[in-house]
Amino acid sequence: MAHLLYASCPLNISSCSKNSPLKKCLSSLPTSITLQTSVKPFKSLPLNRKNAHKLLSVRATTLEQPTAKTGSGSEQTSGQKSRPTRVMVIGGDGYCGWATSLHLSNKNYEVAIVDNLVRRNFDHQLGLDSLTPISSIHDRIRRWRSLTQKDINLYIGDVCDFEFLAEAFTSFKPDAVVHFGEQRSAPYSMIDRSRAIYTQQNNVLGTLNVLFAIKEFGEDCHLVKLGTMGEYGTPNIDIEEGYITITHNGRTDTLPYPKQASSFYHLSKVHDSNNIAFTCKAWGIRATDLNQGVVYGVRTDETEMHEELYNRFDYDGVFGTALNRFCVQAAVGHPLTVYGKGGQTRGYLDIRDTVQCVELAIANPANRGEFRVFNQFTEQFSVNQLASLVTKAGEKLGIEVQTISVPNPRVEAEEHYYNAKHTKLIELGLEPHLLSDSLLDSLLNVAVQFKDRVDTKQIMPSVSWRKIGAKPKTVSA
Amino acid sequence: MAHLLYASCPLNISSCSKNSPLKKCLSSLPTSITLQTSVKPFKSLPLNRKNAHKLLSVRATTLEQPTAKTGSGSEQTSGQKSRPTRVMVIGGDGYCGWATSLHLSNKNYEVAIVDNLVRRNFDHQLGLDSLTPISSIHDRIRRWRSLTQKDINLYIGDVCDFEFLAEAFTSFKPDAVVHFGEQRSAPYSMIDRSRAIYTQQNNVLGTLNVLFAIKEFGEDCHLVKLGTMGEYGTPNIDIEEGYITITHNGRTDTLPYPKQASSFYHLSKVHDSNNIAFTCKAWGIRATDLNQGVVYGVRTDETEMHEELYNRFDYDGVFGTALNRFCVQAAVGHPLTVYGKGGQTRGYLDIRDTVQCVELAIANPANRGEFRVFNQFTEQFSVNQLASLVTKAGEKLGIEVQTISVPNPRVEAEEHYYNAKHTKLIELGLEPHLLSDSLLDSLLNVAVQFKDRVDTKQIMPSVSWRKIGAKPKTVSA
Repeated sequence: MAHLLYASCPLNISSCSKNSPLKKCLSSLPTSITLQTSVKPFKSLPLNRKNAHKLLSVRATTLEQPTAKTGSGSEQTSGQKSRPTRVMVIGGDGYCGWATSLHLSNKNYEVAIVDNLVRRNFDHQLGLDSLTPISSIHDRIRRWRSLTQKDINLYIGDVCDFEFLAEAFTSFKPDAVVHFGEQRSAPYSMIDRSRAIYTQQNNVLGTLNVLFAIKEFGEDCHLVKLGTMGEYGTPNIDIEEGYITITHNGRTDTLPYPKQASSFYHLSKVHDSNNIAFTCKAWGIRATDLNQGVVYGVRTDETEMHEELYNRFDYDGVFGTALNRFCVQAAVGHPLTVYGKGGQTRGYLDIRDTVQCVELAIANPANRGEFRVFNQFTEQFSVNQLASLVTKAGEKLGIEVQTISVPNPRVEAEEHYYNAKHTKLIELGLEPHLLSDSLLDSLLNVAVQFKDRVDTKQIMPSVSWRKIGAKPKTVSA
Repeated sequence: MAHLLYASCPLNISSCSKNSPLKKCLSSLPTSITLQTSVKPFKSLPLNRKNAHKLLSVRATTLEQPTAKTGSGSEQTSGQKSRPTRVMVIGGDGYCGWATSLHLSNKNYEVAIVDNLVRRNFDHQLGLDSLTPISSIHDRIRRWRSLTQKDINLYIGDVCDFEFLAEAFTSFKPDAVVHFGEQRSAPYSMIDRSRAIYTQQNNVLGTLNVLFAIKEFGEDCHLVKLGTMGEYGTPNIDIEEGYITITHNGRTDTLPYPKQASSFYHLSKVHDSNNIAFTCKAWGIRATDLNQGVVYGVRTDETEMHEELYNRFDYDGVFGTALNRFCVQAAVGHPLTVYGKGGQTRGYLDIRDTVQCVELAIANPANRGEFRVFNQFTEQFSVNQLASLVTKAGEKLGIEVQTISVPNPRVEAEEHYYNAKHTKLIELGLEPHLLSDSLLDSLLNVAVQFKDRVDTKQIMPSVSWRKIGAKPKTVSA
């Protein structure tokens, strides 16, 4: 079945006129064409401008039509021509959203990115920048089209603006909505009152709008909502996936797992989960809540195809996640900043697993009225364990890594029990990328590659859970 | 100890000049003076304009200084002159808020009402009105002053406007904040998208502002927050007060009781509870979450002192609570509207117990960092039981009462287990008014008295949990 369709195609196809013979030829190809990502031809290429032209050589083959479970973007209906599943990715310009959008487009889903680009503005406001240089969303999408002949629809606007959201829904008609479009940093939500308010307003009301849009314009549309493992907190019992069966005074019921969130951001996700659960019950919405762990890594099969597709990599104290931060600290010779005792244990996953999980959720939708919860992570680590792993990985690269304990800016248990279930996505077919394999490849080497771009002023935590005040916090330039 | 201080005092003291001898005399009286409410001299007076002048004759005595546990408004510090506890009542112009404000003022608390009066505007917008005629907040407070020589401070504004809230906090300097200032109707929140959004925005963000105001301007201030029993939903196990101890896979922890709210309004209260719990932990806020049942009745000792102090009594399908609605239906000869099977069981309480409970919470504050949850109701009834009780009470008044089942506009279990604990307020000293004693006195007679004011168009439910849409709902005039 696998035929070589085109190879070494350095020209920019998107620059061809609409009716060029090549365009016509390409548009007539079966929709099940996809990039053969399994060979990972570019993985070993260093990500820099010199090699950029090489990445324009795209090899692609037709692949066998995957079954629904493996997450094809096309739906086969009794021998008829398949129609691609239409996925709206809200927040598709962000860290997880961009990687997911490309992955889904690559898998032949028809993708629309909905984004107000506010994440880029947060960087401007706080004087931050991605470690990796990232292109504008317009350049990103143009480059993707030129490389793959796949269009990604783009709706620039705010889901809190229902008029905009309604237009995006009615024109794109999604089969599934993946909702990453939230302020996603716990420290950001704890900077000052106005950021706390912004976070809950944007996240909670934006999600309410998405729910109303689904009810109004496409009741069968599947909502795939990004939650966080942080919703659960650190209870002294095993964490289940969304629900727990409780026997109490001789009676038994299965109830939503109790939540103990520990920032205004994490709380906003709890609020979302509760709102969504209600609409599943009252309106028959079908929803999957992905309680995601801490995501690390930057490379996915698609983003490493071209430097204009690079994903963002945040290492600062506001948006950087623990492991990404440690790798950058190691790369620039800064001691790893362990908060407090370092016994804080969380679930972690590679960004390549984020995109897999979202696709698995889309390909295996929740039933009407079902509020399905998956814990989306692959491994548990304490902060001290992460520091130890980064130290060892540094040794292999000849980097001497120190670790210091810094006063914990958060309010959290620093030594606690933690055992969270995460079997449902594995049952759907998730094949995890484990940290031991990714640490050097997708993390530390990237950090070393771009270490000249590091602003060391951004490394230490600057936001305190206890000192947050009502007054707007000023930013030092 | 009990001396007659003044009696038959029909003059309007507030109209005296600031330095009048009478004013000076009164201002020099001990602050522990209170109206002796235990004799309830006006209870049997019909509430109408003809008797209004009689109510101006106020009898008052000094009472023995109560202990903290009984809820004095004054704090005694080692023999020194006591200072009244300062209570800010947010939403003090509403149904529960007004009754509470008067009760606390009567008990010698220094009271400030903070209210944006939006509840009155809801009536204008939806074409609704209170069964009882209610005075403006300005007239209410003037009348209270003229009757009792007690001032209630008034801040007109919106707690979602932090600049306003900060000014109210810094000028009044509350020791406790009672927060009723939320959109409190489940049907209102289910009218259309904009009302759903408004409810969560107003309630959740308003409460966040209150939390920030406490942190910024008075960290020791005790937050008494009105939640709802509806946060718990109807689980198949006993409902505890806020927390439940769970043993799971051999380990045990006490965790927040799982919540299953069933309207955007109820959800907003769940969001509030989660936000408040976090700030108690992170900032050391002291908070009491009063998960209140369905409140019935209209008369309290203070509101029956004068018709200008009347409380509102909602009987419409949007703001009317179950029992209040049934009594009005009985009074006008409309069949009682049981939703569906009528097995829906909830906790109920008399509004006279609402004001008692709030005072008990204030007089026995939570500790710093404590998030305390009380289930605030006195009895459980199913809707069918309420209908039966109203039918029997009607018989005593010679009213024949019919009951019909109407299609349930809500999404809720109509037959379910329900057993909710409510011992903590009893332990603090709550002495319940039971429904059997109040039904004729405070409910059915009031409904009969004002039945000519009933707009029968408002009796049937008009808001559907399933049919709510994104489009603004129009109102028929």
